[in-house]
Amino acid sequence: MTNWDSFDRLLAARRRPIVDGFISFLRMESVSQERERVRACGEWLARAMQARGLEARVIETGGNPAVFGERRVPGARRTLLLYCHYDTKPVPPEGWLQPSPLEPVFRLGLAEEGAPTVSPAALADGDLREHRLYARGASDDKGPIWAHLWALELMDAAGMAPAVNVKLIFDGEEEIGSPFFGPFTEAHRDLLAADLVLVTDGPKHASGRPTVSGGARGVLGLELTLEAARRDVHSGNFVVPNPAWALNGLLASMAAPDGTPLIEGFEENVARPSAAERDMMARIPVDLPALEKELGVRVPADYLERLMFHPTLNIRGLTSGFTGKQANTIIPHRATVALDVRMVKNQRIEKVYRRIVDHIRAQGFEVIEGADAPLPDALRGRAIRVVEK
Amino acid sequence: MTNWDSFDRLLAARRRPIVDGFISFLRMESVSQERERVRACGEWLARAMQARGLEARVIETGGNPAVFGERRVPGARRTLLLYCHYDTKPVPPEGWLQPSPLEPVFRLGLAEEGAPTVSPAALADGDLREHRLYARGASDDKGPIWAHLWALELMDAAGMAPAVNVKLIFDGEEEIGSPFFGPFTEAHRDLLAADLVLVTDGPKHASGRPTVSGGARGVLGLELTLEAARRDVHSGNFVVPNPAWALNGLLASMAAPDGTPLIEGFEENVARPSAAERDMMARIPVDLPALEKELGVRVPADYLERLMFHPTLNIRGLTSGFTGKQANTIIPHRATVALDVRMVKNQRIEKVYRRIVDHIRAQGFEVIEGADAPLPDALRGRAIRVVEK
Repeated sequence: MTNWDSFDRLLAARRRPIVDGFISFLRMESVSQERERVRACGEWLARAMQARGLEARVIETGGNPAVFGERRVPGARRTLLLYCHYDTKPVPPEGWLQPSPLEPVFRLGLAEEGAPTVSPAALADGDLREHRLYARGASDDKGPIWAHLWALELMDAAGMAPAVNVKLIFDGEEEIGSPFFGPFTEAHRDLLAADLVLVTDGPKHASGRPTVSGGARGVLGLELTLEAARRDVHSGNFVVPNPAWALNGLLASMAAPDGTPLIEGFEENVARPSAAERDMMARIPVDLPALEKELGVRVPADYLERLMFHPTLNIRGLTSGFTGKQANTIIPHRATVALDVRMVKNQRIEKVYRRIVDHIRAQGFEVIEGADAPLPDALRGRAIRVVEK
Repeated sequence: MTNWDSFDRLLAARRRPIVDGFISFLRMESVSQERERVRACGEWLARAMQARGLEARVIETGGNPAVFGERRVPGARRTLLLYCHYDTKPVPPEGWLQPSPLEPVFRLGLAEEGAPTVSPAALADGDLREHRLYARGASDDKGPIWAHLWALELMDAAGMAPAVNVKLIFDGEEEIGSPFFGPFTEAHRDLLAADLVLVTDGPKHASGRPTVSGGARGVLGLELTLEAARRDVHSGNFVVPNPAWALNGLLASMAAPDGTPLIEGFEENVARPSAAERDMMARIPVDLPALEKELGVRVPADYLERLMFHPTLNIRGLTSGFTGKQANTIIPHRATVALDVRMVKNQRIEKVYRRIVDHIRAQGFEVIEGADAPLPDALRGRAIRVVEK
C-alpha cells in the first residue's frame, strides 16, 4: 500500500505555485471558436507538460489541435488514458458576478449566495485551500487537467512512481462537439491505446462523492428553420403567413407541453433497464429534494431512469422576430428552433435523425436538408430547413 | 380654383434647399429610446417651424415631448390637424445597404435591387427629383413632416394662403406605442381641436394612388414569459421542466398553425362588414399577385377583410435559450413570446386582454400580471408572466 503522506505534505507546501500556474492557464483564453487562441493555449499546455518530464506534443486534427502527453513507466503492464478538454465556451461578460470571466477571483463561499470576491494576491497561502476559484473553464475542464499534471509532478517529487503507463489526451474542441476529434482518434488508435480511459469532465455528483460514470449519452443537435415572407413586414399593414405560428404547430406535434416526445419511433431500439441496472439506480445516492431546492423546480420521480434510459427531445433555443427592448411591431419572416436529442444505449444517430425528418414530412412540410440548399419561393412557409449542428 | 403652377415652379427651384434641410433633419438621431436626442430633435423641429412663420413650441407630455405648430388663417372657419411622428426606430447598422442609416444616400432605383448609392453632394440639382433618399426615418415619418413644412413655406412664397387653419402635432414616441401621447391629447383637447385630422404616416398603397384610410386598428402588445428552473442547466446532465415546451403547448392552444386565433371570445363584439363596406373593399385596387411576388408568399384571398375586419393574434417575437452561433447544450430556464393583437371596430383593449388572460388560466397556468410581481418557487414552470407593452 502506497503511503500518500509525503504527497499530501508536498501538496500543502506547493499550493501557491499550483494556484499561480492554474491562474496563468485560465487567463489563456481558449474559446473553441477562437482557433488561434486555442492553438496558443495548446502549445502552452504542451510546454507545461514537458516541464513536468512528460513526452508531450501538439497534434493536428484538422480542427483545433489536440495535446498529447505520455509517461512510460518501466515494467508497467497496464496503460491509463486520461481525457480532458482545454477549450472553453465563449466568455460573454453578462451573467458573471465578477468583472471578467478571464480574470480569476477567489471566494470563500458561493458567488450566487453573495460571497465577496478576494483577489488572488490578497489571499494568504494558508487560506487558499478553503477558497473557491471562479473563472471561465476553471472547472470545465481546465481544473482537472491542472490536477493531473501536478499529481504527476508531486508523485515525482515524493519519489512515488506511477504503477501504470499514463497517457493524457486533451481535446481542443469539445465545447463545439469535437467535430475533428472523433476522426482523429480513429487515425491514432495506437497512440491512444489503453486499458482504461478516464474522462475527467462533467459535474460533481451532488453527494460530493467521487463518481465513475458508466458512459455518456450521444447528442444529436438540430436546427429547424421556417422562412415565410422575404422580409419582416409591419403587423398592422400586412396579412402574411407567420412562420412562428407554423413552427409552433410543428413543435406541438413533436412533444407534449411537458416535453414528452411524440415523434413516431423515437424510442425504437431503446433497451429498458435490466434488473442489475435498476439495482444500480436504486443505490445511486441522488438527493432529489436538494436538487429541487437548488433549481427551484420539481423534477420527475423517475429522475435517474429518465436521465439514463430514455432519449430526450430538448428545445435548447427558440428565435423569431424580437422580444423585450428590441420588440418591433412586425410579422417575422423567419423562425428557428434549436433542438437536441440525448440518445441512450442501442440508439443510432442516423436513425433518430431520420425519424425526426420523417415526422416533419408527415406533418405536411417539405424538408430542406442542409444550410446551403436553396429555398424556392414556392416552398416559403411550407418548408422546414433542417441543419445538423 | 387655385392655380398651383407658381407653387410647382417654386418647388422645382428650391428642391436643393428642401433636400439639404431634410438631410439635416435625418441626421438628427431621434430614436424613441434616446430621450435626450429626441428632445434635441424636437427643439430643432420647433425652430424649423418658427422659421416658416408658424407658432410653434415643444410641449411636455411626461415622456418624449410633442411638437405643436399652428397657422391661423384670418376668416377661416375650418381647422385641419396634421399628425406625424418625429421619433424613429433604433438604428442598428445590420441590414442596411449603406454605411450608416443616419447618413442619407441617394439611389436612382431600389437598394434591394442593387441600385448604387450616390452621395448628396455628387448629385446635380436636376437629378434630385428622380432619386430616392435612404436613411432611418426618411419615410417613417420625417418625410411627411418635412413636406408639410415646405408646403406651407412655398404657399407663402407663391402668395397662396391656406383656406383653413392648420395645426400640426408631431409625436415623439410613436415608435414605442405613444404611452404618454394618449393622455397628452386628453389634456389638450382645446389645443388640438380640429374639423379633420390627417395622419400622414403608414405605407404607400401598392397602386401608387394617394390614399385616405378610414381608420387604424388598435394594437395590444403582450409579452408572456415562463420561467422554470432558476438557471439554465446542461441538457446532458439534468432532467428539469423545459419552459420552451410548456410555452409551445400554451401557444398551440391559442392559435392554429396558420395563425387563426383559437382563444374563446376573441372575436366577441366584432362587427361583420356592412354591404357598403364590402362594396368599398371590392373597389380598393389591391394587387394580390404583385404583393405575393414582392414578399415571396401566398396571401389569403380575403386579404382586405382579414386586414380590416378581423382581429389578429400575431407572434412578433419568440426567445428561449440560444440558436445559431450562440447555441449551447442547455435546457433553458426561460421562454418568452411577444404577441400583438390588432383590434378592429367595436373591440375594447381591456376585454381582449381579459379574454387572453382567461384563456391562459383555462390552460392550467397561474397568471402573474406585470413585470415586477414576484415569482414564488412553487409557481416556477407553472406560471405565465403577462406584461403589456
